[in-house]
Amino acid sequence: MKFGDNCWVDMQQADKNKIVVMPLGSMEQHGHHSPLLTDTYLVTEIAERVEEHLSGQIYMLPTLWLGASDHHLDLPGTVSVTNSVYSAIIKNIVRSIAKAGFRRLLFLNGHGGNVTPGTQAITELTNESDVYNEMWIALSSYWTVAAPAISPEDHGMQTKQLTHACEYETSMMLFLHGEIMRMDRVKSSPPLINSPYFHSEYGGRLNVAKRMATRTPTGAMGEPQYATPQKGESLLNAIADEVIACIEDFATWS
Amino acid sequence: MKFGDNCWVDMQQADKNKIVVMPLGSMEQHGHHSPLLTDTYLVTEIAERVEEHLSGQIYMLPTLWLGASDHHLDLPGTVSVTNSVYSAIIKNIVRSIAKAGFRRLLFLNGHGGNVTPGTQAITELTNESDVYNEMWIALSSYWTVAAPAISPEDHGMQTKQLTHACEYETSMMLFLHGEIMRMDRVKSSPPLINSPYFHSEYGGRLNVAKRMATRTPTGAMGEPQYATPQKGESLLNAIADEVIACIEDFATWS
Amino acid sequence: MKFGDNCWVDMQQADKNKIVVMPLGSMEQHGHHSPLLTDTYLVTEIAERVEEHLSGQIYMLPTLWLGASDHHLDLPGTVSVTNSVYSAIIKNIVRSIAKAGFRRLLFLNGHGGNVTPGTQAITELTNESDVYNEMWIALSSYWTVAAPAISPEDHGMQTKQLTHACEYETSMMLFLHGEIMRMDRVKSSPPLINSPYFHSEYGGRLNVAKRMATRTPTGAMGEPQYATPQKGESLLNAIADEVIACIEDFATWS
Amino acid sequence: MKFGDNCWVDMQQADKNKIVVMPLGSMEQHGHHSPLLTDTYLVTEIAERVEEHLSGQIYMLPTLWLGASDHHLDLPGTVSVTNSVYSAIIKNIVRSIAKAGFRRLLFLNGHGGNVTPGTQAITELTNESDVYNEMWIALSSYWTVAAPAISPEDHGMQTKQLTHACEYETSMMLFLHGEIMRMDRVKSSPPLINSPYFHSEYGGRLNVAKRMATRTPTGAMGEPQYATPQKGESLLNAIADEVIACIEDFATWS
Amino acid sequence: MKFGDNCWVDMQQADKNKIVVMPLGSMEQHGHHSPLLTDTYLVTEIAERVEEHLSGQIYMLPTLWLGASDHHLDLPGTVSVTNSVYSAIIKNIVRSIAKAGFRRLLFLNGHGGNVTPGTQAITELTNESDVYNEMWIALSSYWTVAAPAISPEDHGMQTKQLTHACEYETSMMLFLHGEIMRMDRVKSSPPLINSPYFHSEYGGRLNVAKRMATRTPTGAMGEPQYATPQKGESLLNAIADEVIACIEDFATWS
Amino acid sequence: MKFGDNCWVDMQQADKNKIVVMPLGSMEQHGHHSPLLTDTYLVTEIAERVEEHLSGQIYMLPTLWLGASDHHLDLPGTVSVTNSVYSAIIKNIVRSIAKAGFRRLLFLNGHGGNVTPGTQAITELTNESDVYNEMWIALSSYWTVAAPAISPEDHGMQTKQLTHACEYETSMMLFLHGEIMRMDRVKSSPPLINSPYFHSEYGGRLNVAKRMATRTPTGAMGEPQYATPQKGESLLNAIADEVIACIEDFATWS
Repeated sequence: MKFGDNCWVDMQQADKNKIVVMPLGSMEQHGHHSPLLTDTYLVTEIAERVEEHLSGQIYMLPTLWLGASDHHLDLPGTVSVTNSVYSAIIKNIVRSIAKAGFRRLLFLNGHGGNVTPGTQAITELTNESDVYNEMWIALSSYWTVAAPAISPEDHGMQTKQLTHACEYETSMMLFLHGEIMRMDRVKSSPPLINSPYFHSEYGGRLNVAKRMATRTPTGAMGEPQYATPQKGESLLNAIADEVIACIEDFATWS
Repeated sequence: MKFGDNCWVDMQQADKNKIVVMPLGSMEQHGHHSPLLTDTYLVTEIAERVEEHLSGQIYMLPTLWLGASDHHLDLPGTVSVTNSVYSAIIKNIVRSIAKAGFRRLLFLNGHGGNVTPGTQAITELTNESDVYNEMWIALSSYWTVAAPAISPEDHGMQTKQLTHACEYETSMMLFLHGEIMRMDRVKSSPPLINSPYFHSEYGGRLNVAKRMATRTPTGAMGEPQYATPQKGESLLNAIADEVIACIEDFATWS
Repeated sequence: MKFGDNCWVDMQQADKNKIVVMPLGSMEQHGHHSPLLTDTYLVTEIAERVEEHLSGQIYMLPTLWLGASDHHLDLPGTVSVTNSVYSAIIKNIVRSIAKAGFRRLLFLNGHGGNVTPGTQAITELTNESDVYNEMWIALSSYWTVAAPAISPEDHGMQTKQLTHACEYETSMMLFLHGEIMRMDRVKSSPPLINSPYFHSEYGGRLNVAKRMATRTPTGAMGEPQYATPQKGESLLNAIADEVIACIEDFATWS
Repeated sequence: MKFGDNCWVDMQQADKNKIVVMPLGSMEQHGHHSPLLTDTYLVTEIAERVEEHLSGQIYMLPTLWLGASDHHLDLPGTVSVTNSVYSAIIKNIVRSIAKAGFRRLLFLNGHGGNVTPGTQAITELTNESDVYNEMWIALSSYWTVAAPAISPEDHGMQTKQLTHACEYETSMMLFLHGEIMRMDRVKSSPPLINSPYFHSEYGGRLNVAKRMATRTPTGAMGEPQYATPQKGESLLNAIADEVIACIEDFATWS
Repeated sequence: MKFGDNCWVDMQQADKNKIVVMPLGSMEQHGHHSPLLTDTYLVTEIAERVEEHLSGQIYMLPTLWLGASDHHLDLPGTVSVTNSVYSAIIKNIVRSIAKAGFRRLLFLNGHGGNVTPGTQAITELTNESDVYNEMWIALSSYWTVAAPAISPEDHGMQTKQLTHACEYETSMMLFLHGEIMRMDRVKSSPPLINSPYFHSEYGGRLNVAKRMATRTPTGAMGEPQYATPQKGESLLNAIADEVIACIEDFATWS
Repeated sequence: MKFGDNCWVDMQQADKNKIVVMPLGSMEQHGHHSPLLTDTYLVTEIAERVEEHLSGQIYMLPTLWLGASDHHLDLPGTVSVTNSVYSAIIKNIVRSIAKAGFRRLLFLNGHGGNVTPGTQAITELTNESDVYNEMWIALSSYWTVAAPAISPEDHGMQTKQLTHACEYETSMMLFLHGEIMRMDRVKSSPPLINSPYFHSEYGGRLNVAKRMATRTPTGAMGEPQYATPQKGESLLNAIADEVIACIEDFATWS
């Protein structure tokens, strides 16, 4: 059910064991070819499928399109808050949901940069008050929740994992919003350092802090030129199914 | 034009004198009868009309549905950040828009509680750096910008001004989203104190800080029982026209 | 009664329903002709008249001469704190008054720049604890409280409203401290932008953030050349009467 | 010269090598017998004597009566900010004075609780920017500056040093504002712990944090019953002379 | 080389391309059987081996034993700072190292709770100034850097991975400081929720915030009863080798 | 007893009236001749002697080598946090110790720059909650606690007091770690200003904020050329004895 279409007296009477789900997006550069709202479009699509399937069991908040994307600010159009402000936002949201009496809250994340400040926030909250420690508060990205369902071989992917404006994200955007995609501008962009300790685009064994414009000239990662709408449809179906399964499991924890 | 459907290279080449407009909403209780997203629905409708009419002259951001509504938190379903966090959000957004090179930014506000922290933010920013003082940064609520166009007599209103979940807001919601309105639950709610110094619902000559649940038992103000969709349509047309006129004027300041 | 001339044991035994009044001033540029302490001198004069008239009913704190005037810092002699620090000061003062057990507190403001951070502070406090929500905490500028009593026609004013170092403030200063006024230096200073949306000196329908040195070359607004001590005396009498009436009304709210 | 009676154009033309002096007071309990504004009255008297004597060489700001007195809040009437907020205030004031172009600034302190947060502030500022490191910024209490001039034997004191609402402060208040002193209420109050490591009322070799109501039941320290106006006059003369001598020396540092 | 045994003139002349390494530990409960300093002892041992092997190429700071362990505070003896304060510490350290002119900095982490606030810090810094973006700043836990070298089969481990006070950490402590280990107190402690989405002790696909005392009654995780000093020696050798190899690789990035 | 070698169940059963002692050091420039860790080495030596002598009565934490040394940052190798962050650290540590149930806590300081932020912290804490006001929380430097025991004449010192990298500190370092001292580089460095109000190296009657590189070209103060290991041994013995006596006294306060 859509959270925001209720009146407060409806919320007062709601079953407080239902899970409140809040999708987290971003407004940030996604290379020369994919729009600023890419992460927001993708996580919103997944959230809508979840909401449709689990309508009676969850309250779905609207996607927060404002994310922690400061490492993308060198490339214009990115609209972002710092990690610290993002942590404050997440804390305030949990506080609001707790105040309403709900006991289960899932942040369904769609942007890598939100993970650290989001985790910073829910960890601190849990340490600040028993109220939050007694709730079930979770924050995970859809590609982490659905990791086993998006192995490259199952969807015909050429690249190993979902990164940023990559074959995976581009495929899903082509399926959903092909009309605003600019595949004519796609270029391949190799990683900055070729080292086994720095091989992963997001993190790696040696977690190095560098802004995106330093890591990749186009702002994209992976190999978006291999993207197709068919791959995107296949990925979205698998992800939505796995996220739904996860939420159904989460609902049983006590 | 929709800001978020551009790629960063489009933003790099954009005319930086165009106005970036960002609508500000809320997720907060609106009495027994109007949904939590009321302010967001209303300001988004106005923003869409503005975007349609001024498509070539502005970049329209999506509505930020998360507002400063802590004074409503006693009534469940309100999702809010504190004033201080809201100020931080607004500062971070201005910073992002300035970083992209734009020179004109309008926050088109749809929730009264956002005005103080929003003004706190843009005032501080202007004092912090010449970069912000040299930009044109404005923040106003649609009912302030359009004040001369929404006089009660022009739209057949029974009450004097737009407040909260009142005849005005309820009328506009009835026109736009009548199917989720619960007019069967409407009650009149008189103000807390009957004093000439406390007569206005929002502020008044003596600006008194009290949470909403202390001011009104239902969470609504004004007289929503007089609302009709016809009044709502009339108000929306007048507001959109005046906001458009204002933005056209703003575009000429130098 | 003067708050600060009591010992703590007197305060312990005080009637906690009496109103604590705290005047808020500033140390900021007031054009070429009026001294840095203008706002402090004016609000202190009004406070002293109030204290004299309501001596048995109120506790009057000394004026806080340090205000939120960062937008005036370009013009030297301004001594100011940022909006955020001013909000923190106001919160700490309310906390102190609440700790002493008083239930009614009025900040009688004499500087426009204090309104936003002062309101930010009392709004946040009210949302933070029932202690503050149950008190009556108000913050208003003397020109707002006394608005009906200072209409231009009643005092022979040439300009429509009180702004900054204007005909109104200058008249009152001429009456009170003519010996330090430099009327020989007065010049007229027209507003920066001539637009119906930007017509008001303080705010207007489109609330635009700009530092004072950008808005007016002299640092003054309005038309101080029309000021006379007679107008000043007339204004001060009317303002003091209306502020007294307001406080007497405030004392009855419950 | 009084800082606040100048216009900004006067400050623009001022000799920036003159010393700006800012007296720091408090509004806090001073036992059963001395008023809340005791520290403010005393430091203001000293400041006025300094201003009179060095009129052409300094700019004297008004006393900031709001201090860091949270350790006194248990006893009602204390109006205070936390140490952190006080540090922020001091930093903002230095920033304002530096912005005006002055190179020498002395905080003349009259309340013990201001020393730590004031020192925290000026130390941090000096580390933050060369602008502040290149200025001469000092903060000292009048009893520290004038230490050699207030030895007990020179003024017939029974107790060894100035503490809080003690023989010294009470004597000076009797001389200046005897009409509001309540000597009829004076009681002796011995220190909490009788240990050579805890012997000093302010600090001692083992610096222990305890609120005042825990340290002394009356809120006073030392032996106020020995106070006389004659001792007070003698102390004030000696202190003012030594503070003046110090400022004259400070003016020559380069 | 040991960083702290140098004088500042030595640091002025140092080769700024050498890597500064700072080990991060904790003081936190490690079950009934392992001491509060467990993480600090382990990461310090690894750091000392690294320093010995790479003496001419690195500057090794002392281990910071104070970590972000608030989720352990329910169990006494834990000495910790909040995530936000830990982030501030890390930012201040990077700032100090950058001020000295070094270009490469590795935080070698030994406590899981430090990862989120540490990453929050270095990400924010990189976004705040080009100075930090141009440096190579990395933060990784030794078990992440050395992941391929500590597969369970290579060291005869019964459990799959290193968690907290587990078979792995206990084995290494038995090898290093067996005299203070209390193996007589060891109990097995199964995870709180048996779900495929919550299976991992540190994180898992659904990242859930819960304090440690809620997750495990003893404060330990994994199966410490299988620990032996031989396994510990084998693990330490493998980890030290892999961390050394990583640092040698890191030294070549440009 | 060493705090960190206990398990949490040991701490649960500990006698909570025992004093927790935490030594505070620094990593900062100490002139051309003494290493960055000077303060840490010295306070750690004293702490170890205390721990040995009072083993059954106290819990000794490891020295925190990270201090508030920003005023030394101009000279490379200094690793420091700002005063504000240092205050936050101290507050968090007190909170941790209070959470474990201990009632007495002594910060044994070894670096002058830690005093102001440490005092800021414990003062604020005591004002924030009765929990902290009811504890005995002290913070003092070893040279303050032991002041009567280190008079120059008792140890053959040529200079009047302990300052920074001076005859005193250098003597103790020569005794403890002569092998890393560089006496070949020692130069005398006279104070910046020769004034009776500025005569003391640490503070003086006029407390002036200046960074160290502005005060002394070498970074050292006093006359380190007079240092000998014999003086150092004598000082260390006297200091340790007096600190032990103080702690034994502190243990009896109630």
